Amino acid sequence: MAEIKILKNILEANDAIAAENVELFKSKDVVVFNVMSSPGAGKTSLTLETIDEAKQAGISMAVIEGDIASKIDAERIKEKGITAVQINTGGACHLDANMIRRALKHVDLDNISLLLIENVGNLVCPAEFQLGESYRIMLFSVVEGDDKPHKYPLMFTEADVLLINKVDLLESTNFNMEEFKKTVRAMNPDIEMFEISCTTRQGIDSWASWFKSKLTLTDK
Amino acid sequence: MAEIKILKNILEANDAIAAENVELFKSKDVVVFNVMSSPGAGKTSLTLETIDEAKQAGISMAVIEGDIASKIDAERIKEKGITAVQINTGGACHLDANMIRRALKHVDLDNISLLLIENVGNLVCPAEFQLGESYRIMLFSVVEGDDKPHKYPLMFTEADVLLINKVDLLESTNFNMEEFKKTVRAMNPDIEMFEISCTTRQGIDSWASWFKSKLTLTDK
Repeated sequence: MAEIKILKNILEANDAIAAENVELFKSKDVVVFNVMSSPGAGKTSLTLETIDEAKQAGISMAVIEGDIASKIDAERIKEKGITAVQINTGGACHLDANMIRRALKHVDLDNISLLLIENVGNLVCPAEFQLGESYRIMLFSVVEGDDKPHKYPLMFTEADVLLINKVDLLESTNFNMEEFKKTVRAMNPDIEMFEISCTTRQGIDSWASWFKSKLTLTDK
Repeated sequence: MAEIKILKNILEANDAIAAENVELFKSKDVVVFNVMSSPGAGKTSLTLETIDEAKQAGISMAVIEGDIASKIDAERIKEKGITAVQINTGGACHLDANMIRRALKHVDLDNISLLLIENVGNLVCPAEFQLGESYRIMLFSVVEGDDKPHKYPLMFTEADVLLINKVDLLESTNFNMEEFKKTVRAMNPDIEMFEISCTTRQGIDSWASWFKSKLTLTDK
């Protein structure tokens, strides 16, 4: 019972800071995506594609990178000329709202319209911790198998958007797209789903149309 | 500080139960594999291949399946005529030693030589919790990308064996096997590595030779 209570307190404290982050983002007119996936589903490739699409549309953005260790991803993103703040969680399997609050000291919210947060690669804990995001974007690779919604229900239930990645590898798998989408839809009727491939760029335009439609166009 | 202390206490309590599990397994002459990976790396496919190899060699085994939710995997394994105990963690992102102790009530240790534990799909927390296993088997799919040892160092450092799965998909990826193995070897010089594909069965014989060499041959 003690363990459950501690977890409840941790989540409540997190939610309070997340609510403050929400207010801050609103006041600065910044839309925030919390991108979650398994390790290796393609989060950083998606981020790089999203940066390119945002650039072409004249949208100013920044990235917060969450990882247990290493700075590889932030460095790849900085090469695109974008502010990228690396959070190393030092063992923790998810980001939390306070980590975001601290990282925001290095982000110029007055001059961006979009903040993309790459969470730690994990299908479990990130779903429990709100960061103050506007939308929860789940990235899922078809190589992971179509049975995963049954095994990781919270993430599939909580996501606003599901990007089904690596569809260029579909033929090498026994992934049943129709069945998979039906399962996800039953758990989460309002979810938006896009089939994409960051390798072939299939579906990236649909994802870009969606995310651009969520931004307030300002002079930033 | 309080949070760190609580985690320390949880890990110490877990280690104490894990040590009791170790003694129990030793007294019953049972070798135990703790199989860990990301979601969708192929743990259940590996388990099914391992069951077939064990059967052919006359090795009696059982399986403990860890999942957040669902009983799909245990049911697939029972079809092979093997004892399969499902643990649903109900949200927790890893198995712990006490969950194993409770599951063991449903396993006849006197009549098996090998117990395979499939941990929850997650590259982070399972590495921190000992279960009482003889060997830590990490399964990794090449589709996850060759940068992952830098991002999830604990799992790669703690594993006794690394099974590099889905090598049949290598040509569809930019995975650099040589560089990957070099990185892993630098972090963990004693690790055993096998390239496998549960789809084409490439390398399964090498894995089988390894695991059979770790079993005491008895009349069980």
